[in-house]
Amino acid sequence: MATTLITGGTVVSATGRAVADVLVDGETIRALLEPGSSLLGTDVAASVDRVIDATGRYVIPGGIDAHTHMQLPFGGTEASDTFETGTRAAAWGGTTSIIDFAVQTYGQRIEDGLAAWHEKAAGNCAIDYGFHQIVGDVNEASLATLRRLPDEGITSFKMFMAYPGVFYSDDAQILKAMQVSRDTGMLTMMHAENGPAIDVLAAQLVEQGRTEPFYHGVARAWEMEEEATHRAIMLAKLTGAPLYIVHVSAKQAVEQLAWARDKGQNVYGETCPQYLYLSLEDQLGAKGEQWGSFEGAKWVCSTPLRSREEGHQDSMWQALRTNDLQMVSTDHCPFCMKDQKELGLGDFRKIPNGIGSIEHRMDLMYQGVVTGEITLERWVELTSTTPARMFGLYGTKGVIQPGADADIVVYDPNGHTSIGLDKTHHMNMDYSAWEGYEIDGHVDTVLSRGKVIVDGDQYLGAKGDGRFLRRGLSQYLI
Amino acid sequence: MATTLITGGTVVSATGRAVADVLVDGETIRALLEPGSSLLGTDVAASVDRVIDATGRYVIPGGIDAHTHMQLPFGGTEASDTFETGTRAAAWGGTTSIIDFAVQTYGQRIEDGLAAWHEKAAGNCAIDYGFHQIVGDVNEASLATLRRLPDEGITSFKMFMAYPGVFYSDDAQILKAMQVSRDTGMLTMMHAENGPAIDVLAAQLVEQGRTEPFYHGVARAWEMEEEATHRAIMLAKLTGAPLYIVHVSAKQAVEQLAWARDKGQNVYGETCPQYLYLSLEDQLGAKGEQWGSFEGAKWVCSTPLRSREEGHQDSMWQALRTNDLQMVSTDHCPFCMKDQKELGLGDFRKIPNGIGSIEHRMDLMYQGVVTGEITLERWVELTSTTPARMFGLYGTKGVIQPGADADIVVYDPNGHTSIGLDKTHHMNMDYSAWEGYEIDGHVDTVLSRGKVIVDGDQYLGAKGDGRFLRRGLSQYLI
Amino acid sequence: MATTLITGGTVVSATGRAVADVLVDGETIRALLEPGSSLLGTDVAASVDRVIDATGRYVIPGGIDAHTHMQLPFGGTEASDTFETGTRAAAWGGTTSIIDFAVQTYGQRIEDGLAAWHEKAAGNCAIDYGFHQIVGDVNEASLATLRRLPDEGITSFKMFMAYPGVFYSDDAQILKAMQVSRDTGMLTMMHAENGPAIDVLAAQLVEQGRTEPFYHGVARAWEMEEEATHRAIMLAKLTGAPLYIVHVSAKQAVEQLAWARDKGQNVYGETCPQYLYLSLEDQLGAKGEQWGSFEGAKWVCSTPLRSREEGHQDSMWQALRTNDLQMVSTDHCPFCMKDQKELGLGDFRKIPNGIGSIEHRMDLMYQGVVTGEITLERWVELTSTTPARMFGLYGTKGVIQPGADADIVVYDPNGHTSIGLDKTHHMNMDYSAWEGYEIDGHVDTVLSRGKVIVDGDQYLGAKGDGRFLRRGLSQYLI
Amino acid sequence: MATTLITGGTVVSATGRAVADVLVDGETIRALLEPGSSLLGTDVAASVDRVIDATGRYVIPGGIDAHTHMQLPFGGTEASDTFETGTRAAAWGGTTSIIDFAVQTYGQRIEDGLAAWHEKAAGNCAIDYGFHQIVGDVNEASLATLRRLPDEGITSFKMFMAYPGVFYSDDAQILKAMQVSRDTGMLTMMHAENGPAIDVLAAQLVEQGRTEPFYHGVARAWEMEEEATHRAIMLAKLTGAPLYIVHVSAKQAVEQLAWARDKGQNVYGETCPQYLYLSLEDQLGAKGEQWGSFEGAKWVCSTPLRSREEGHQDSMWQALRTNDLQMVSTDHCPFCMKDQKELGLGDFRKIPNGIGSIEHRMDLMYQGVVTGEITLERWVELTSTTPARMFGLYGTKGVIQPGADADIVVYDPNGHTSIGLDKTHHMNMDYSAWEGYEIDGHVDTVLSRGKVIVDGDQYLGAKGDGRFLRRGLSQYLI
Repeated sequence: MATTLITGGTVVSATGRAVADVLVDGETIRALLEPGSSLLGTDVAASVDRVIDATGRYVIPGGIDAHTHMQLPFGGTEASDTFETGTRAAAWGGTTSIIDFAVQTYGQRIEDGLAAWHEKAAGNCAIDYGFHQIVGDVNEASLATLRRLPDEGITSFKMFMAYPGVFYSDDAQILKAMQVSRDTGMLTMMHAENGPAIDVLAAQLVEQGRTEPFYHGVARAWEMEEEATHRAIMLAKLTGAPLYIVHVSAKQAVEQLAWARDKGQNVYGETCPQYLYLSLEDQLGAKGEQWGSFEGAKWVCSTPLRSREEGHQDSMWQALRTNDLQMVSTDHCPFCMKDQKELGLGDFRKIPNGIGSIEHRMDLMYQGVVTGEITLERWVELTSTTPARMFGLYGTKGVIQPGADADIVVYDPNGHTSIGLDKTHHMNMDYSAWEGYEIDGHVDTVLSRGKVIVDGDQYLGAKGDGRFLRRGLSQYLI
Repeated sequence: MATTLITGGTVVSATGRAVADVLVDGETIRALLEPGSSLLGTDVAASVDRVIDATGRYVIPGGIDAHTHMQLPFGGTEASDTFETGTRAAAWGGTTSIIDFAVQTYGQRIEDGLAAWHEKAAGNCAIDYGFHQIVGDVNEASLATLRRLPDEGITSFKMFMAYPGVFYSDDAQILKAMQVSRDTGMLTMMHAENGPAIDVLAAQLVEQGRTEPFYHGVARAWEMEEEATHRAIMLAKLTGAPLYIVHVSAKQAVEQLAWARDKGQNVYGETCPQYLYLSLEDQLGAKGEQWGSFEGAKWVCSTPLRSREEGHQDSMWQALRTNDLQMVSTDHCPFCMKDQKELGLGDFRKIPNGIGSIEHRMDLMYQGVVTGEITLERWVELTSTTPARMFGLYGTKGVIQPGADADIVVYDPNGHTSIGLDKTHHMNMDYSAWEGYEIDGHVDTVLSRGKVIVDGDQYLGAKGDGRFLRRGLSQYLI
Repeated sequence: MATTLITGGTVVSATGRAVADVLVDGETIRALLEPGSSLLGTDVAASVDRVIDATGRYVIPGGIDAHTHMQLPFGGTEASDTFETGTRAAAWGGTTSIIDFAVQTYGQRIEDGLAAWHEKAAGNCAIDYGFHQIVGDVNEASLATLRRLPDEGITSFKMFMAYPGVFYSDDAQILKAMQVSRDTGMLTMMHAENGPAIDVLAAQLVEQGRTEPFYHGVARAWEMEEEATHRAIMLAKLTGAPLYIVHVSAKQAVEQLAWARDKGQNVYGETCPQYLYLSLEDQLGAKGEQWGSFEGAKWVCSTPLRSREEGHQDSMWQALRTNDLQMVSTDHCPFCMKDQKELGLGDFRKIPNGIGSIEHRMDLMYQGVVTGEITLERWVELTSTTPARMFGLYGTKGVIQPGADADIVVYDPNGHTSIGLDKTHHMNMDYSAWEGYEIDGHVDTVLSRGKVIVDGDQYLGAKGDGRFLRRGLSQYLI
Repeated sequence: MATTLITGGTVVSATGRAVADVLVDGETIRALLEPGSSLLGTDVAASVDRVIDATGRYVIPGGIDAHTHMQLPFGGTEASDTFETGTRAAAWGGTTSIIDFAVQTYGQRIEDGLAAWHEKAAGNCAIDYGFHQIVGDVNEASLATLRRLPDEGITSFKMFMAYPGVFYSDDAQILKAMQVSRDTGMLTMMHAENGPAIDVLAAQLVEQGRTEPFYHGVARAWEMEEEATHRAIMLAKLTGAPLYIVHVSAKQAVEQLAWARDKGQNVYGETCPQYLYLSLEDQLGAKGEQWGSFEGAKWVCSTPLRSREEGHQDSMWQALRTNDLQMVSTDHCPFCMKDQKELGLGDFRKIPNGIGSIEHRMDLMYQGVVTGEITLERWVELTSTTPARMFGLYGTKGVIQPGADADIVVYDPNGHTSIGLDKTHHMNMDYSAWEGYEIDGHVDTVLSRGKVIVDGDQYLGAKGDGRFLRRGLSQYLI
């Protein structure tokens, strides 16, 4: 097996940094060493097959994006990134593992939904991938299956308090599934929005002729995210299930998380780059045209972008600092404007929900380091170490230490990245939700299990490089 | 320089664990390696001077006790451990660094107080030591000196809201010193109890003939800890100073910390083993004799032991889990019963305040892992990694990584430690505050900067092994 | 019309007391006067038809019980008090107005449900009565009808978050009805328990053979009351509807009310005597027989009795003092043990839910004055003045002032009342939920619109004395 | 004694309103009657000496201003209103009672301070007056005297956490005085600002050349009001003393009050018109001149005007609605610009602190009814009924009921009042802090103990009409 030495860089962990060399042997990190020519008489650099000079750069564990939706059927169309295109874009952006959501639809067996997902992904991924299980139909059979999923390396499942008639679970169903979560230690993931109430508001808006994308954000009021978050917390408290709220965007939802966490409950949350940078006013009420533009459809996602005036974005950054939110995922769920987002012309409810960000998460979060929102260590923790711990991958992923998979990114703080459709866009979308964003850093080199898959401007990976990740139980619970 | 390989153990960090070998070269950790006979063709174990077999045991960064008071003059006597005896006891217990408090008394120059502390410690310590600066007299001169202390490796200072007439600073003084803290980045440490109010209550109790040790805890009501904690938080908010509350013992004080932390303020707190395990009823109201026994003097410390019925102990454990408290220090301040604690016969106010725990902190906290209060990783974080980050030592201390000082403890989870005066007592005290405690683990081997100073039952260290630690600014702030 | 002078008593209002005479002219209070023989030359006492000497006693506005269920069909049986028997018992206890709940069942028109209630009550009541409207089937037609109810003197309606398949409304329905509440100013009343979740727990308990009455209280966990309370608050916040939570019993539900009220939201709550005095352990786990007795069925109601150990009862009293709860109603819903409660032998879910207290509310709350839980003024406020204001009756009811209905109770603080089936029991029940309670006060005289209907041991009223109360909008909102 | 009938008006109380006639006999209210020509055969209107037609107007209990400082020595000058001028202005504005603060200065005996205040007031007041006692020197003697003050009709005392070297009490002193409060039932009133900290900030600002009135508000940061409020609450909790915070202006201070009140503590607060209407930006940073104008001195008071951008004013109004603040007083403490405010030219610290509002409180608060901030009933409660209850005057004052003093205001909601120096200014000040304010209502008639002292544009009262009010203990505690 080939050996590689990444030398002279600053290895950053969740707790600090060290100038150290990383010795990779095959797919695995073999050693961390003080930089220097010799170790016990051996000239290390001279003894390896390849040396990567990381001087002046950060050496970090590869990004883990724990919330993606490749090829997700939604609203009569399908998310535009395949496992192939989506994971390749991820790799370009310094992400070396994803956890996608296998879907059980209503009336379907979990086994079949899961098998279909394995089929979509197997042999197609550029990087390693795991699955959460979406439970779209909680019943005796699916609950029984759920209990067995940890044996297959799937240790978390997601339910929806939104989307009645599609993915929605009612509180009785949620309670039963959470009992499985408590019994097995699986993590309950929740899309926390009060769907029945939101759907009433949305229908009323459309009846009133308020059909533009902006009203998507009006209908999905923060009160209904806050409410569902509280409800999920209380059901989790009642059952003893560990709980993880996906795509938190409302500051009041964070307050609920903080409230529960202060009492010692195992409750966690992620936010996404869109809730940190984008806003209802800026994007959906696009550019001065009085809520009239369909361009806002580009940023229609659920939970929705929130009002900057109400302070949600600042609150998300703060929660990342206070650890009331523990992770940043993308909720990558891309749709093209043409033929896809356009389904919602004349009725915002028909716009497929989703934004594509998988390629830019590491960069966008690094920009938070540049602007002083978070520390360098926190960047690594939010994007890699905690995702690994939260979802039972730590040790193999999420850390640079002997025995771990050699998923490593060399990140240049003196580099620069311009985001835009004509620039650094590898996602299968006909627009970029991040057009024009400039990043004061650059993903230089990406190793996935020891293989250099991105080297500057070159993509060296291949379809099928990525393997399925059998995950253990969460390593983050208190 | 001699080389040592610690092999086969489980290296535990704040975020996880890895089975890895640690290669020590002289005083420094040179490498972490996957266990195995050869590295790039070199048989590592065969190439080193010494091999320590840590199979089945934990390999952790040496403990850092950030709150000790060696030889502290207090109430007409002096803490009974010298830097020599106290640091040796620390070493026995797996602690390889302390941060002691240099004292400026009222009327004294900071320079002189600090110089005296250097003199006490220099050449006497078994392990490395740093200083915080106690500011007992805030005035123009001392504030000016304070600003220069970071140049001398002292990056934190402590004030007292208690002890009027001794160490007490009023709010005007605190405000001024916190402005220095904000300007310099030094951490403001605070003894948060409302001393003027407490002293009134204490005097009234003594007037009423309630003179036994138990009434020490009555006088120092939790309301006055909560109040002072809130006040310190607000003064810190006003000035922008980072704040660290020492020896938190009241659950309501924790609630204040959580309240401020939820808002994103740089506010931190430590608790001590005595506030986790001991209680007002159990120790001070000693053993059924109706508050009448002077034996309670053994556990007279400030802040005081709190009522178990009121739930303070449970709250402290919970706060360690929720990270509303970040560290566990000892506030090691030992006094013998004879001639020292006895000064308070007939008047609890004259009992020297303090408990000796420096030897047992690592064990007592490990017992929290055994009983399920905290995780193994959290144990390391609370006792070593966070203290290092909080007080500007991380990288050198608090972590096992290349380049760090080889301060390493091999801890045996299958070992056993019985605490008691006739058993494992190396502190210079004529009693143990922890008599009879049994620990399901054992400190097997302790390395301080590469030197094995404890090896099973043998003490191999020497007076003067320890060096002064020049600390940087806190690495923990958000 | 006859004139009456109530002389020498202490007239108690919500804000204070005055020694004053009350002059009643026909059905109405004509004047309040300083006691004394003459007014502008007229000897008042000599000029009236009747003088009631209230010296040494309290003269208070007649009690208003805003939550009763006469003849309510429930679980295959019907509440055992008719409007005749129930209102007569109310009168005996110093209550001179009730607001009962007209029921729209699922599939029924509101108009028909309401008409049926008018029919049950008309000509049968001993005291005045109004109606709230239960909306058991929220749909376009019922929403339209709801908007017109204020014209018929019905200004509040109630929905249920519990009882799926019976009265339950989902969040979409609640939202729509709350929009009517916002538009019309009608008060939304809510039974706040998460029924779908509770029903799962209840079914699981029964499956496990835990069928005794005690498990009713286990299934209806406080977490699910807290959750539903929060949810109702957020839906009310989103819509702008004023909200009133019925029969609050969990301290955590009160915390939610306080949280919303501190922010200025129009959110209110009542509790009932059973949540102040009785507990899960004491009543349902009846008397030492290990959860095995069916006697507990006597106290099966929803929300359920709560654990005393958890402090719910103390919290209710406190909330009455802090005005986080504003009223005390009975939720009077009596069932006999024989043939009624017994329906639940072997399955607690089949026990008709309800307790009868209408006769004892004024006494039980007065006992709170005796024990120091509330002030004398607060007693009047909680039982009469606020109910009147809350439900749009103030001026006519709830106060002793010129122009108000002469609904007056003369209450003797030196009297005594023993509660028990063989003592002071006028409710149509074969047991008393309050057997053995002793009250240090006594309802001496009760006037309903000027007519003395209770005079010591004599009942002087008649079926049909009571009239329907057309209520205005709430006078309590901020 | 003369009799008066106020007829046809709407009598407003704290809980509601009634169209009723008020019969006054001498100094006392003799009866409330339904309007109409005859009572028991007597033609009431024809039988009285005087009839006041209040048709279409509100009849309310005279205002009680519980916080005034007539002739207060402060900063080398003295408040410009004497008891004569100040109480006359009060009467013009519908206030019929004041509670002024007798001052014990440092080194003085309470007895002597109080005697001096009696001397200032006796024979000079237009309306009734009571005293709170300021304790400026807490020591054994003053504490002993304090205990006896209830016998002299003084049942509340005030301490200052601000103004070191003048009125300041330290926490030890506060604790001791609060113990007296607990023992006697006297209400502890607190000026809650952290004076020592504020004085440091103020001195630093002046050193920096920031000497204009605007910086008064900068120095007195809300953090230091919040802090002191919390501290006072905790000291009150520790001792069991009932607590009343004067002149609350910071929203965060209100949050502290709400926090304590939610837990059931006897903690209360007042705000003043200036904190409801005026702001730091508007008044102190007067009118666009960049903080440079001395005109801002007009509004220099302590606590200071707060930033509107930070939302303090909205929070005060909300707290009046939620009853987290219970009263509105003026803190009337007038100084002329000439020779008085001007003392602070060049140093804001030397500007005498205070605003004159005694004449306008009832009007300014009524304007809150007009704008929908509070209800009509709440207006009466905040300005009269609660002040009476809070300070032990209820029954005699604060309510229109038989036996009460005939302190009555006829207020015209269709009238209009223009505030300004050349319009309706009777205070002894050379400017109006309220210049240009327009009120949609008018004080038409004012009776003080039965005597009409204001009748439209005529002042009919006389110096010496007012008597000293011996107050009882608070009637508002829970």
